[in-house]
Amino acid sequence: MRRVYLDYNATAPLLPEALEAAVPYYTSVWGNASSIHRQGREARMAVEDAREQVARLIGAARPLDLVFTSGGTEAVNLAIRGYAYGNRARGQHIITTRVEHPAVLDTCRALEQCGFELTYLPVDGLGRVHPEALAQSIRPQTILFTMTYGNHEVGTLQPLAALVDVAHAHGVAVHVDAVQAVGRVPIDVVASGIDLLSLAGHKFGGPKGVGALYIGNGVGTTMQAVVHGGHQERERRAGTEDVPSIVALGRACALLSQRLVDESQRLTRWRDHLEAGVLSRIAAVHLLGKGGERLPNTANLSFTGVKGEALVFNLDLLGIAVSTGASCSSRQGVPSQVLEVMGVSREVSEGSVRFSLGWGTTDEDLERVLEVLPPTVERLRLLSPWA
Amino acid sequence: MRRVYLDYNATAPLLPEALEAAVPYYTSVWGNASSIHRQGREARMAVEDAREQVARLIGAARPLDLVFTSGGTEAVNLAIRGYAYGNRARGQHIITTRVEHPAVLDTCRALEQCGFELTYLPVDGLGRVHPEALAQSIRPQTILFTMTYGNHEVGTLQPLAALVDVAHAHGVAVHVDAVQAVGRVPIDVVASGIDLLSLAGHKFGGPKGVGALYIGNGVGTTMQAVVHGGHQERERRAGTEDVPSIVALGRACALLSQRLVDESQRLTRWRDHLEAGVLSRIAAVHLLGKGGERLPNTANLSFTGVKGEALVFNLDLLGIAVSTGASCSSRQGVPSQVLEVMGVSREVSEGSVRFSLGWGTTDEDLERVLEVLPPTVERLRLLSPWA
Repeated sequence: MRRVYLDYNATAPLLPEALEAAVPYYTSVWGNASSIHRQGREARMAVEDAREQVARLIGAARPLDLVFTSGGTEAVNLAIRGYAYGNRARGQHIITTRVEHPAVLDTCRALEQCGFELTYLPVDGLGRVHPEALAQSIRPQTILFTMTYGNHEVGTLQPLAALVDVAHAHGVAVHVDAVQAVGRVPIDVVASGIDLLSLAGHKFGGPKGVGALYIGNGVGTTMQAVVHGGHQERERRAGTEDVPSIVALGRACALLSQRLVDESQRLTRWRDHLEAGVLSRIAAVHLLGKGGERLPNTANLSFTGVKGEALVFNLDLLGIAVSTGASCSSRQGVPSQVLEVMGVSREVSEGSVRFSLGWGTTDEDLERVLEVLPPTVERLRLLSPWA
Repeated sequence: MRRVYLDYNATAPLLPEALEAAVPYYTSVWGNASSIHRQGREARMAVEDAREQVARLIGAARPLDLVFTSGGTEAVNLAIRGYAYGNRARGQHIITTRVEHPAVLDTCRALEQCGFELTYLPVDGLGRVHPEALAQSIRPQTILFTMTYGNHEVGTLQPLAALVDVAHAHGVAVHVDAVQAVGRVPIDVVASGIDLLSLAGHKFGGPKGVGALYIGNGVGTTMQAVVHGGHQERERRAGTEDVPSIVALGRACALLSQRLVDESQRLTRWRDHLEAGVLSRIAAVHLLGKGGERLPNTANLSFTGVKGEALVFNLDLLGIAVSTGASCSSRQGVPSQVLEVMGVSREVSEGSVRFSLGWGTTDEDLERVLEVLPPTVERLRLLSPWA
């Protein structure tokens, strides 16, 4: 049976070139990048080359503004907690949105327990924060606005430029959780004026277990470390550098720097083809986030009268991997908070399934989905007590 | 030129079997271990198999007592900070030693800035903490004793059983930083009564970027997370699991569970051969930590009239990788605090070089060192203003 993987927002397969780049750092250049002997220096050079490759993908002017972390979650923790504690003397108010990933929400909740005040901004029906809402929530004590660019469930892209403008007009720093956006849409941290930006390797073809935080010039000196220990990463993140994973991340970023425009167009075309195909073949389908700017790879479709989870299981039996909402919460079986905040009804929310595409997606994958999905939805609707 | 790597305490090459085990999780089973579809479930099974393999190596009765982290440093951070914050209501006093790795010392210093009181125990000339010193330092507010088993510079093994007995007699939990000990000497967390134990993959043949924290039954419910986000690792460590690295760590642990006794004996024999060879061929050499129980793989030798750093550089030019002290501090060029606390004179400290052996070490490596070292030391002594 042909297996189809359309769950790239959970994780992407590693680009073969990225694995190829990493292997020598497993088999021959295995030094600790902090060691002063040749094995260490060779590892160090590889780490610094990778840092340049990551910097280039996101438009960072200085590679040293990037700190390697163990992934997107740790990058987000470092961004928010590191900035919050480093700037506590100036104020203890932080603004975020109600449609964030748990990495942001749980970090914010932990800060609330330590005396910080948080504001969670609402979103419209497409999942967008309105710049006026941000402006109204800013107080003299506000130090940080943290938001996701490229929602993990629906794909909504926030009006980044307008939001950054509002925050900066009030002297508030901006952290962008770009874990789902990097490698899928162009990002330029300098042109956008982003102060902090988190990314994860494994969402776009790098390995799991590695990510990076961009720390802009204006905020670098005030950051506090979250993981304490050795002097690695200019004292901003302790722990022996994971050289092979960092090299693989760098290689993936270098490839995407070349391919991004083409890749973004290709994904958009396919996603539109998938959405149109589903909407033309199946009745009573909601396309969530429709009409707003979205990630080019994400289609969140809700099938009336069907439970999303049942559809995921049935497609899985047919060799198609898709998802309901965030994978890191998927075992909890709770309804999506993101959709609820967007004002999506409970029934539509429970019938929603996320299809997320990526570099390995093929024409055949999409044809297979369009072939299998209509009879599967029909069968589930016939079985449903709601139908 | 034959290259000789004797810096295993900085990092070890990956065991080929560990890389082999990881590769399928890069190339075919790339799912997110939290996804509910087949790709996710296969990844999940691999993670849980690895957890059993790690548990077996350290004698943990329940695999779920192990939490995967991004390495030894993060494990140590989670152990100390997670336990400290989770038990703050009972008391805010923590005891450690003056010969800890920066991962422990910097975490302790960060706690001091947050209202915790720390006691740093002295050590004897071999680097050992005395159980009576621990007993005397315990107060009613003491909640945790954290110490390294297997010092990273000298290799000193603490009198673990006696120290655990003292701590437990006073109701104090024990965290063991076993990053240098795991895979080199037998460890049984249950038999030893250890409450928390940190390990890192890359010191004994697993990959960099992955480690684990053992959280014993008695302390598990009180731990607080250090990295916030998704529900991974039973809410004790958020972030997408690095499946290939976890699988490789598991495989390395499984191999070491079989090989540990032989490996430990082999390393001891070689280390003794190296030490005896150096002492018989070169005059005025101090063997640090001599006479105490030590890691089987670590020889810290000081050559009177020679700067350790100069010797490291010169051996590096001859293709031999060794180290002065901890690699993560090696670029700072500051004298070793560990040796200072042991009462080693500044001159002996500055002349010291760490030779650390591991699974890839061969007879030829040691013969090469014994051939090259005497003329190199002699030449440096002739050049030295101290000679």
